[in-house]
Amino acid sequence: MREIVVVGVGAGDPEQMTMQAVSALNRVDVFFVLDKGEVKQELVDLRSEILRRYATSKEYRVVVGQDPERDRTTSAYVEAVDDWRRRRADVCADLIATELGEDQVGAFLVWGDPSLYDSTLAILDDILARGELAFSVEVIPGISSVSTLAARHRVGLNQVGRPIQITTGRRLAKGWPEGVDDVVVMLDAQTAFTEHVDQDADIYWGAYLGTPDELLISGPLREVAAEIEKVRAEARERKGWIMDTYLLRRRPKS
Amino acid sequence: MREIVVVGVGAGDPEQMTMQAVSALNRVDVFFVLDKGEVKQELVDLRSEILRRYATSKEYRVVVGQDPERDRTTSAYVEAVDDWRRRRADVCADLIATELGEDQVGAFLVWGDPSLYDSTLAILDDILARGELAFSVEVIPGISSVSTLAARHRVGLNQVGRPIQITTGRRLAKGWPEGVDDVVVMLDAQTAFTEHVDQDADIYWGAYLGTPDELLISGPLREVAAEIEKVRAEARERKGWIMDTYLLRRRPKS
Repeated sequence: MREIVVVGVGAGDPEQMTMQAVSALNRVDVFFVLDKGEVKQELVDLRSEILRRYATSKEYRVVVGQDPERDRTTSAYVEAVDDWRRRRADVCADLIATELGEDQVGAFLVWGDPSLYDSTLAILDDILARGELAFSVEVIPGISSVSTLAARHRVGLNQVGRPIQITTGRRLAKGWPEGVDDVVVMLDAQTAFTEHVDQDADIYWGAYLGTPDELLISGPLREVAAEIEKVRAEARERKGWIMDTYLLRRRPKS
Repeated sequence: MREIVVVGVGAGDPEQMTMQAVSALNRVDVFFVLDKGEVKQELVDLRSEILRRYATSKEYRVVVGQDPERDRTTSAYVEAVDDWRRRRADVCADLIATELGEDQVGAFLVWGDPSLYDSTLAILDDILARGELAFSVEVIPGISSVSTLAARHRVGLNQVGRPIQITTGRRLAKGWPEGVDDVVVMLDAQTAFTEHVDQDADIYWGAYLGTPDELLISGPLREVAAEIEKVRAEARERKGWIMDTYLLRRRPKS
């Protein structure tokens, strides 16, 4: 039977690869890559570097598929993502069926950890549910940008015995989540932290985590929010893209 | 100046060590270990195996300190943990001052990831705040039990565009957290999931993740809760200890 391995490759530093991930890479016949059509050449290069450095004991092929466009104009976010996933599943099913031999191992490399805001597992579930293709799935966990953020700032994510929420910029813009003082925000294209400068909170922000371009800023939210906005906008302008995440930590009231 | 490196060593499988963690291990002169005085000989052996396998390029010493007892009888949880941390800080400060040379590198190995429900960073902050010892701190992120749980069950932690809360068994026992349908529970000695069998939720449970004794159970909460309780109690009895974690996933109402 065909085998698919979904490998978390860390947040951006090739040294974040685990031994397990390296072993997995060296069993792979075909690496599947969806080309987002965007100019994130640095990420393409970084992925190539990971393969060059660690996938050393076996011949492999890299097969590139065309990532379908996602409708970013609609306000129906979940529906737009669902539709996009379905079309990604079409592309991936076709790649697996045509490019992967019956007894071969295929792989998808995922930045960070496959369990956090990544669609690869849902896409594979979708393909399997259609019943036209059979394959086993193995997942290799990776170092997430969240763990990397905390490590680089040398902080824990939680306060003693207290919960942590991981959420999106879209949700944070609607209000501080109920019942938590520690909030990790991912996928924030709109700097939603600026909506919360009235909170007695600290922010620990990081961009391009684990890469030579890493940016780190921390401090009381109301004092550093403007600086983060400025640094973020400049970096995005300079590099053409940005990946960032942050922890907001509020002093518990109780 | 003295240097302390806090190394996440993964959830229990030595193959979860990252390249970065291996490099760090090979710069270390002294590994500090706090002996919990409990019979978790397997964890001691596993730590030794990690050093034996990966800390190969340099002479090192392992120094064992006596972990202070934590008051588990009081209901003042945060105060009890704070007090325990202070006494752990006393022990660690003493170890660093007496065992680590001025130009040497010391290390604390942390199971999982140092950013999740681990006290090492807070203890080092506490020691530094006292102003009697100076050292730099570097943190190497590790694969958490949470990422391992998700990988072994081949699920994401979040539903599309939705938040995740990571919390404790103690808190879950008081009620399902506000505003989230996906809840990861750690440090649950009281099987708090059994309080929520009335929810239309699935559970993804795992114990001894990443080790040869790994246990995995998943399914509709109301159908598998009793089985998990039984398997958990038997495993705990058989091995004398248990480390487990789980994801509760409720179908969103909106």
